[in-house]
Amino acid sequence: MAEAAQTLDGWYCLHDFRTIDWSAWKEKSEWERQQALNEFNQFFSRAEINEEAHDGSFALYSVLGQKADFVMITLRPTMDELSDLETEFDKSKLGEVTDPAYSFVSVVELSNYLGKDGGDPYANPYVQKRLKPILPKNDYFCFYPMDKRREHGDNWYMLPMEERREMMKSHGQIGRKYAGKIHQIITGSVGFDDWEWGVTLFSDDPLQFKKIVYEMRFDEASARFGEFGPFFVGNHLTQEQFQQKFFI
Amino acid sequence: MAEAAQTLDGWYCLHDFRTIDWSAWKEKSEWERQQALNEFNQFFSRAEINEEAHDGSFALYSVLGQKADFVMITLRPTMDELSDLETEFDKSKLGEVTDPAYSFVSVVELSNYLGKDGGDPYANPYVQKRLKPILPKNDYFCFYPMDKRREHGDNWYMLPMEERREMMKSHGQIGRKYAGKIHQIITGSVGFDDWEWGVTLFSDDPLQFKKIVYEMRFDEASARFGEFGPFFVGNHLTQEQFQQKFFI
Amino acid sequence: MAEAAQTLDGWYCLHDFRTIDWSAWKEKSEWERQQALNEFNQFFSRAEINEEAHDGSFALYSVLGQKADFVMITLRPTMDELSDLETEFDKSKLGEVTDPAYSFVSVVELSNYLGKDGGDPYANPYVQKRLKPILPKNDYFCFYPMDKRREHGDNWYMLPMEERREMMKSHGQIGRKYAGKIHQIITGSVGFDDWEWGVTLFSDDPLQFKKIVYEMRFDEASARFGEFGPFFVGNHLTQEQFQQKFFI
Amino acid sequence: MAEAAQTLDGWYCLHDFRTIDWSAWKEKSEWERQQALNEFNQFFSRAEINEEAHDGSFALYSVLGQKADFVMITLRPTMDELSDLETEFDKSKLGEVTDPAYSFVSVVELSNYLGKDGGDPYANPYVQKRLKPILPKNDYFCFYPMDKRREHGDNWYMLPMEERREMMKSHGQIGRKYAGKIHQIITGSVGFDDWEWGVTLFSDDPLQFKKIVYEMRFDEASARFGEFGPFFVGNHLTQEQFQQKFFI
Amino acid sequence: MAEAAQTLDGWYCLHDFRTIDWSAWKEKSEWERQQALNEFNQFFSRAEINEEAHDGSFALYSVLGQKADFVMITLRPTMDELSDLETEFDKSKLGEVTDPAYSFVSVVELSNYLGKDGGDPYANPYVQKRLKPILPKNDYFCFYPMDKRREHGDNWYMLPMEERREMMKSHGQIGRKYAGKIHQIITGSVGFDDWEWGVTLFSDDPLQFKKIVYEMRFDEASARFGEFGPFFVGNHLTQEQFQQKFFI
Repeated sequence: MAEAAQTLDGWYCLHDFRTIDWSAWKEKSEWERQQALNEFNQFFSRAEINEEAHDGSFALYSVLGQKADFVMITLRPTMDELSDLETEFDKSKLGEVTDPAYSFVSVVELSNYLGKDGGDPYANPYVQKRLKPILPKNDYFCFYPMDKRREHGDNWYMLPMEERREMMKSHGQIGRKYAGKIHQIITGSVGFDDWEWGVTLFSDDPLQFKKIVYEMRFDEASARFGEFGPFFVGNHLTQEQFQQKFFI
Repeated sequence: MAEAAQTLDGWYCLHDFRTIDWSAWKEKSEWERQQALNEFNQFFSRAEINEEAHDGSFALYSVLGQKADFVMITLRPTMDELSDLETEFDKSKLGEVTDPAYSFVSVVELSNYLGKDGGDPYANPYVQKRLKPILPKNDYFCFYPMDKRREHGDNWYMLPMEERREMMKSHGQIGRKYAGKIHQIITGSVGFDDWEWGVTLFSDDPLQFKKIVYEMRFDEASARFGEFGPFFVGNHLTQEQFQQKFFI
Repeated sequence: MAEAAQTLDGWYCLHDFRTIDWSAWKEKSEWERQQALNEFNQFFSRAEINEEAHDGSFALYSVLGQKADFVMITLRPTMDELSDLETEFDKSKLGEVTDPAYSFVSVVELSNYLGKDGGDPYANPYVQKRLKPILPKNDYFCFYPMDKRREHGDNWYMLPMEERREMMKSHGQIGRKYAGKIHQIITGSVGFDDWEWGVTLFSDDPLQFKKIVYEMRFDEASARFGEFGPFFVGNHLTQEQFQQKFFI
Repeated sequence: MAEAAQTLDGWYCLHDFRTIDWSAWKEKSEWERQQALNEFNQFFSRAEINEEAHDGSFALYSVLGQKADFVMITLRPTMDELSDLETEFDKSKLGEVTDPAYSFVSVVELSNYLGKDGGDPYANPYVQKRLKPILPKNDYFCFYPMDKRREHGDNWYMLPMEERREMMKSHGQIGRKYAGKIHQIITGSVGFDDWEWGVTLFSDDPLQFKKIVYEMRFDEASARFGEFGPFFVGNHLTQEQFQQKFFI
Repeated sequence: MAEAAQTLDGWYCLHDFRTIDWSAWKEKSEWERQQALNEFNQFFSRAEINEEAHDGSFALYSVLGQKADFVMITLRPTMDELSDLETEFDKSKLGEVTDPAYSFVSVVELSNYLGKDGGDPYANPYVQKRLKPILPKNDYFCFYPMDKRREHGDNWYMLPMEERREMMKSHGQIGRKYAGKIHQIITGSVGFDDWEWGVTLFSDDPLQFKKIVYEMRFDEASARFGEFGPFFVGNHLTQEQFQQKFFI
């Protein structure tokens, strides 16, 4: 049996993609619409207060194309809080005019492939900051889930630790070339959702998403072992932009 | 032909995942909502009485993300009872405001891979208890269906019994490391549903689900031979919590 | 080119799985509901008369889980009759409150793998009875469609006849161990539906479905060459039980 | 690079499968229903005039099972005409009570695998007749789309022309055994739809569809290289039968 | 690790496929319909002005078959503009009577496989013109997304650059044979959508789409390494033709 890599786990994460039911929205009275937006503003404001208290993070993005209209990404210390927030949105007046489009349940994860410096990694402030990240405010986001392949001839989970470590090291070197251009949050979803990991990228230039994913695709860790789910891309939205874009 | 492992079979099991149709719920009058909740409370109370009489077991969990809002897991000595309960819920007033999201039909199963001590295993009180389990009341549940792979080069069902037994033994040793942290109920669904087994895990810490599934993924029985369906995770709900969370 | 096995073909068969639209049913007036049930009773009674005249067979089963609520299995000498019956149900008042869930078009088939005794097999009364079977009235049914695999390394259709015959013989020996416990009807669907065969099993003990399918899975004909579609399981329903269970 | 076989291309073809929305039909007034049928009769009559002028062909078939209720198969010299007819039906009153179920865009195709006699094949009257066929009026139809496989070890498109020609020749010999029993129209859909070819079969005995497809499945061209999509089967319908069956 | 080919990237591109909800359209009053068409005409006119200013491009095509009724293809310098246009259409009165059918997010891409002449390629006017193309006004369009295969034995991303360059060169030679008959726009979607590239073809003869795709399928780059998504084909529509065809 191959040795499993150790992971460090931080905040739980829910990617909640929604599609707007435009007809339902238009059928609402002016007063109901205003109520719906007020209610959502309070929902959003509580998320801002939570983020300022560093008890979690929350961000809104539009999604380009028909897979969804927007996504809410929420980080919290417990699954219970994510569940409460999801149900709160479902029961809200704005929730009434959205349909579920896709969701992803995971937990912020740092891989320990690249070595240990001894000591309790959870005591390391830098590690703590990465495990409990504030979602970057870059202009664009990109999200995709992925697996490591388990096929005859290309089975990641049957490789010796050393071989996997070498490939992840090379993978990380590509990533570092994009430092300053792309922020990346890796979340683990084994046991929580249908894919093993979620990759969420943030940048002020969406072309960087294409460049990094394409370059990595030639890297053996992706070329031979990466299986990719749906890709989502879109724009960061403030509370005002969200209202303005979709509901005014 | 490879020798089939013997299985011991207990209570039949239905995982019934449901999505709430919030608009339909909101359209109900106050009086209809109260009626719907009263009716469900009686449904739930009868399940409690059944569990106390040890004639079956029943539990409710929320589901995080958009795959479903909640799941009812029911164990009964016969399929007929499961079918009656499913139809009773379908015809109920609360059933009117839920849509089917996913279901899984199976039977509690103990594998005999790990040896026989002679004698009728069904006469063993410990075996009886495991075949007719009371669903644990831990805070979180995780469910996923799975198959053993039958591909050229990785065909579980073409392996000699001894090789399969060795792999299942190693698999069980990982499981035992999580004793006290995770309760596990294995149900067999060959001939009943689209996957061969269902795995239902219970824990007070959802991170344990990720840890055990990830660690097992490196084990040859999973790495080479495991095919996994959708994963569901969520919180245990009492009757009161269920009402409070979704319907108040 | 490998030699194709000869088949004997009998009555055409339609498995028609339906889901009940409970809200649509509840919206009907008491008078409309009674009309709907009366109309269905006449539909059912005509099927009974047809069965007594040995011009076909018809049976109703509930389906456990969310794949469907019930299935109508109909056997007739021609496709035209099956098409007429399907449209008659679609246009009926009960049809208005059901949605299609799954269907399977096939013809009762006997494989000639296991030898020929000379003479016209269609003249054999035993063969005639098996080609034009009355659907058994056991308590439970199980249905699944299947293919023989055509992959590189595991390609059933490239094997010599002799090798296929040996495997089917071993397969049949497992089947015979369940004689008295399970009735089986094999229907061929090559050219008619998306899978190559349908397997419909009948038993008074649903655990026998699990046992036979699991045991056969270790048999080379299934282990290397069987591809399986969705599995359905449920209870036999008389006309009265059907009404009582779903519509009273 | 393997040499591509030459093809001869004739009329464009649209298979337009539709499901009837029975509730929507029943909600129409008697007068609207009559209008809808009158409008369709005119649509059908124009198609008959077109067929008599040999400017195209049109036929209606019921579909057995839940994949669709009926299919309209239309042949025309241009895609523009097919698009106009499709939109005309969509906008019609009968169109209002049908939902799309499946469609297939292709062009009648003759393969040139089996040799050339010199000269312009399009000048050959026999070729012209086969490229611009009148849809046969047999009692039953069968339709399925298919691909030639491109997998490692079984890659049709990497085979030398000679090897492909040999296999297609053997394939054609099986086909010729069914001459008089089955009419076949092959349409090419590379670049037009998701599969590479469509096969439409016509016969007065539906069992012949099963026999030919099953026998061909053992032929190397199908056994190793055929990938098959959904299968549809049903009855030919005149304008009167169409009305009578579904709408009276 | 294999060397990644360099790409040049131009305008962002959205393929927005829509299905018309004919019942919803018919339920609109005459006045609402006129309003809806006026609003769309303004939307279209602004797109024409944008195209004349060479700040983007826009075109409308019908889609043959049931996958969609029409597609809007839009090119813009930024994703933000594409997102604004998509939302503007969603919120419009015509948007109310369409349902999403398929979408594809990408960016116009030139591959650098075929050599570099030194100097900044973005400074080359010919390159600029190809990166910011005006959508051709040919009578027909064809669209399909595709991947390069990453399977054991056929893994494009594990091949040395030289081997990939040779195959792409041969691929390009086939393409050049269709110069004058087919215009082609390649868009890259790695990191943006579920497939790696989109291919959009334009021609006055739809048979050319079948010919080029079929011929290329025998080319090793496609035969061994091409994975293809859904294919769409249809007619170019002016603003007037669009109204006339669907809404008058």
